[in-house]
Formats: sequence, structure tokens, C-alpha cells
Amino acid sequence: MPQITILTETELRKAVPLNIEAVEQIERAFAALASGKVVMPPILSMEIADFNGEVDAKTAYVPGLDSFALKVSPGFFDNPKIGLPSNSGLMILFSARTGLVEAVMLDNGYLTEVRTAAAGAVAAKHLAPMQASSACIVGAGLQAKLQLQALCLVRPIKHASIWARDMSKAQVAANELASRLEIEVSPVSDLAATVEAADVVVTTTPSTEPLIRAEWLRAGHHITAMGSDQHTKNELEAACLTRADFYVPDRQSQTELMGELRAALAAGAVSAGANFSELGDIVAGQARGRASDADITICDLTGTGVQDTAIATYARAQALSLQAGTTIDT
Amino acid sequence: MPQITILTETELRKAVPLNIEAVEQIERAFAALASGKVVMPPILSMEIADFNGEVDAKTAYVPGLDSFALKVSPGFFDNPKIGLPSNSGLMILFSARTGLVEAVMLDNGYLTEVRTAAAGAVAAKHLAPMQASSACIVGAGLQAKLQLQALCLVRPIKHASIWARDMSKAQVAANELASRLEIEVSPVSDLAATVEAADVVVTTTPSTEPLIRAEWLRAGHHITAMGSDQHTKNELEAACLTRADFYVPDRQSQTELMGELRAALAAGAVSAGANFSELGDIVAGQARGRASDADITICDLTGTGVQDTAIATYARAQALSLQAGTTIDT
Repeated sequence: MPQITILTETELRKAVPLNIEAVEQIERAFAALASGKVVMPPILSMEIADFNGEVDAKTAYVPGLDSFALKVSPGFFDNPKIGLPSNSGLMILFSARTGLVEAVMLDNGYLTEVRTAAAGAVAAKHLAPMQASSACIVGAGLQAKLQLQALCLVRPIKHASIWARDMSKAQVAANELASRLEIEVSPVSDLAATVEAADVVVTTTPSTEPLIRAEWLRAGHHITAMGSDQHTKNELEAACLTRADFYVPDRQSQTELMGELRAALAAGAVSAGANFSELGDIVAGQARGRASDADITICDLTGTGVQDTAIATYARAQALSLQAGTTIDT
Repeated sequence: MPQITILTETELRKAVPLNIEAVEQIERAFAALASGKVVMPPILSMEIADFNGEVDAKTAYVPGLDSFALKVSPGFFDNPKIGLPSNSGLMILFSARTGLVEAVMLDNGYLTEVRTAAAGAVAAKHLAPMQASSACIVGAGLQAKLQLQALCLVRPIKHASIWARDMSKAQVAANELASRLEIEVSPVSDLAATVEAADVVVTTTPSTEPLIRAEWLRAGHHITAMGSDQHTKNELEAACLTRADFYVPDRQSQTELMGELRAALAAGAVSAGANFSELGDIVAGQARGRASDADITICDLTGTGVQDTAIATYARAQALSLQAGTTIDT
């Protein structure tokens, strides 16, 4: 039997930084999704109510990649009370040809953070105006910071504003980002004015009520709504989707269930039979995205198993080239 | 973050032999299943037709156990052409309180073999006549051998016969078992006569057509049908189930879909609303099993996630006490 590589979070953080190479891996995964040959079964989900926990497992086979990942994501929401993070988990990489385990990535969710932020960059690369120079980030959590970092990889962002319900959190995030990205980043309290002024808006909150109003949208806007991947997610007012020239889901079958499309369908703003080109279709050149700098575009990201398979396949290659990890003979 | 233990197949074979202690772990898991508080979500299943492969993931939370396992079982049926086994895979053990990974068990399916054989022993312990001394094993594969070994742990078996379509395989298995178990084991070609003469019959084939006829059953018989856990499985003629005094599924919701009960329902031998006590109910003392040495009992085993969680939890404890495995700081 072949050897298996065990990689820790520390090793994976070194091997897979959020950079343009990681973004390109995720971009290729979206193109593969457009081929129609990806296999992505429904998520396995188990609740452990006794301990306020849940665990999800996702997988996807992407033709053209030699491996496939299976990701297990536990969320145990009482963990912070005992000094542990709520989210943890790992990815297992298998050979797509033989099913043999190739690597076990004890990443505690790190690779998910990278592939999620990278998808934001892919959305902006293919949908935002080329000269977009200002960004508004809604939320001040980890993904808020990573989304701005990812956006700067694909667009010449000079100014960014951070809005959060808790202004002090926006301040801390803004300081950190200004120093890391060497651009101007300000905390803001007036969301409407900040959205209107920005070229690109990225929403990253777990909000269950709309934060962005349709009347704030203006010619040239690009909005990426990534928020949480739950069926209660709702960051955009339903009318935003109809006001946009292009609404682009990562996977329509998912955004109908847990993306902004779900809320827009429920509100009757979008009719049930509507069919949208997906981000992968645009990446693959099979569908048209933004046609002019005046178009309004919205990308709805809920997270796909192909991103996990892509980032884990890439992580293994990077780790091998760095000779990182512990090798186990089985 | 706590340390994670990585265990290989070699280490797990040493730590978890098929013995009475392993059987007792699985017995307790069945009792827990009867409590009704087990959480066992539907299996995640993905086909990779490009390479004639499939992968399944199963999990279960068992109240009372500090951990839960998630098992990933790839089956790639062209592997033997390149000198690799068709089946491989691993189990991951998580803390049931925090969701943190505790152990990664690179067992290549070994723990599944043990928990499957142990379930056969649990069935015989609770359903076969106490003085059962002869066994007929149908099939000559790995589970055929393990089922006889497991049966000998719970009943005073003196003679066993092995039937297989290929008599030469039955001969090889019989020789191996006679020497390992120090009992009389013979290959046989007349299945009807052998079944009639045996106290306990265990079917272990992937047959899709009935092998055991109802007319062969006699007072005192215990039959365990474990075969393959697929929706095409069928080893017992439908009338066997109605001729038996007790038909006992491991999990009725599963045997309806892929056990002997599926075929009996399809044949109309059992009516759709029928409700059976499960093996766990009998182990837990919540339902009655065999009432006399003259009863005919049938146990239908399709394999449950609780067995995986139980064997993996036990394997980690055994490995810790043996100081086996590689420890990873995350």
C-alpha cells in the first residue's frame, strides 16, 4: 500500500497561503463544475443535541483532478465556554483512481477558510469592473478579513471600508487589514452611504435579515454575498436580485436552498422556474458575465465540495514540494 | 488543541483482535441502539463511474460513548487488476463532547471486518440454542471465516461445514479454520443436507438469489444472514422469514431496504406494516428472543453505524493502553 501523508494546521498554513495561486486552483474547480461531469452528493449531516454540536461531511469528484477530498466539519457551539474553538475538522484526500487514502489534513477548518475566500476572488475576477478600486466589506469576522485580502489579489483596491454591528470590531479589523494589505481601510457606521460609494461590496455575515437594500445599488456595482451557508442566510433584500443585470450563483441547486436566491424565491421576487448561469459557466466561457462597466452584478456563494477537492489536492502537492508532513506506512 | 493519534492497519490488527471483548463492545452498542437515542443519519454515497469506484461515509452518535466515528469506505473494483485491494478506507474518531478529532484509524476496512463478525456473535449469543454445537457456513470468503471464529466465542461449536459455489475455495477455508480454531471443519457440496444437520447457519455471500430454502428449516435452527449490505442482497427464500418463530433485524429501517426483509416484502411473504423487535431490543432485554430450544430464529444483519462508533472507540482505548500509534500535535 502507498504511503499516507499527515498534515497539521501549522504545516497547511505554511503550504497553502491565500495567494493568487490558490485563487487559480479554485477558479479551475469552478470551470470543472461547468463541465457537468462533477459528482457532488448531498451532504451527510448529524446533530448531537446532547452537546449542542453538529457534524457535516461533504465530498465531490472533479474530473481532471487525480484526487478527491472528503471534508468533515464539526461545529460544537459550547466549546468556547471551555476555551476551545467551535469549529474544527479535517479533510481526507483519496486517489480518484483507486480510492486509497493519500493524505489526512488536520486543518481545523483552515483550508475551508482559504477556499471560501478564494471563491470570492474568483467571483470578483469574473464579475467586478476591471478598475474597481474601492471595496465595502460587511462584517468584521475572519472571512471579512480574508475576503478583502482575496479581493486585493484580483482588483486594484485602494480604499476599503468595514461595517459591522459592533463598531469596535470594525475598528480592530480595519487596523489589522490596513497594516497587512497596505491600503486605506476605515471602519464605517453608515452602511447605505458606504455601499453606494464602493465599487465592490462583499457581505460576510450570518445575518438572517437583509442588510443591503436594493435602492442602494448603482450602475457598476458588484456584490458578492457569501455570509453563512445555512438555509436561514439572508443578507440582500430580495429586490437586489431583480435589480441586478446578472445574478450568478455558485451552484443554483444550493443557492435555492440556502443562498440569497432562497429568500428571493420565498419573497416572490424571483419566479420558481428561473434559471441562472453559474459562476463556473462564466469562468469556463460558457456564459456571459458583466457586459459593461455600468452593469450591476451579484454573486451568491454557498460553498461547494469541488472547492474542497480542489484546495485539498493543491495542498497535498504544495506539502509534497515542501517535504512537509508526517509520512505513515500502512 | 489536544493530540491526535494516527493508527495503521498493522497496529489496529494487534490492538483489536476478534475476541470476546470485541464482541461485548458490539453487544453494548446494540443495546444502546435500543435506547432510541442513537443518532444515525443516512449514508453519504458517491459513485466515481470514470474509475469503477464508489465511496460511502457513515456515522452514528451513541449516547454513553465519549466518541463518535465517521467511516469512509471506498470500493474501487478495478483495483485488483493493478494488484491493489478493491476495498480500503479509514475511520475517524471525534470527541462527542467537542467534535475535536481524537484518532485517525487507517484500517483499510479491518475494523469493519471485526465489527461485522462480532455482530454475528451477538446474534448467536442472544438467539441460538445454548448448546448449539454444529455450524454451517455458507460462503468461503473472509467474513465466512471470521463468522465461524466469532460464533465459536459464544457457542460450544465442535463441527462446522463450509459450503461455497467453488468447492476448492471451501476446501481451503475449511483447512485454514480447522487448524486455527482446533475444531472439525469440512467442505460440503450438498447445501440442503448440511443446513438441515446444523444447529447454526451463517450466510455470508453476496448472492442476489435465495440459497436457503424454507423447507430446509427445522426446529431449533438459528440462521444469521449477513451477506452483502446492498439493496440487491438475498440469501434466504422469502418463506424462511414466515416459517421462523422470530425474525430479528439489526435495524428494520435498513433491512427493509437492503436486507432479507426487502426480498420478503417484495415477494409479499411479509406485509408492509409488519414491525419486528430488533437485535438491540433483545440484547437490552426490551423484547423476547428464542423461547425454547425448538424455536426457529433468523437474524438479518446489514451493518450499522453504531457498530463503527463502538469498535473505533474501543480501538482507541486499546491502542492507548498499548501505547500504539503515532501522536500528532496539531
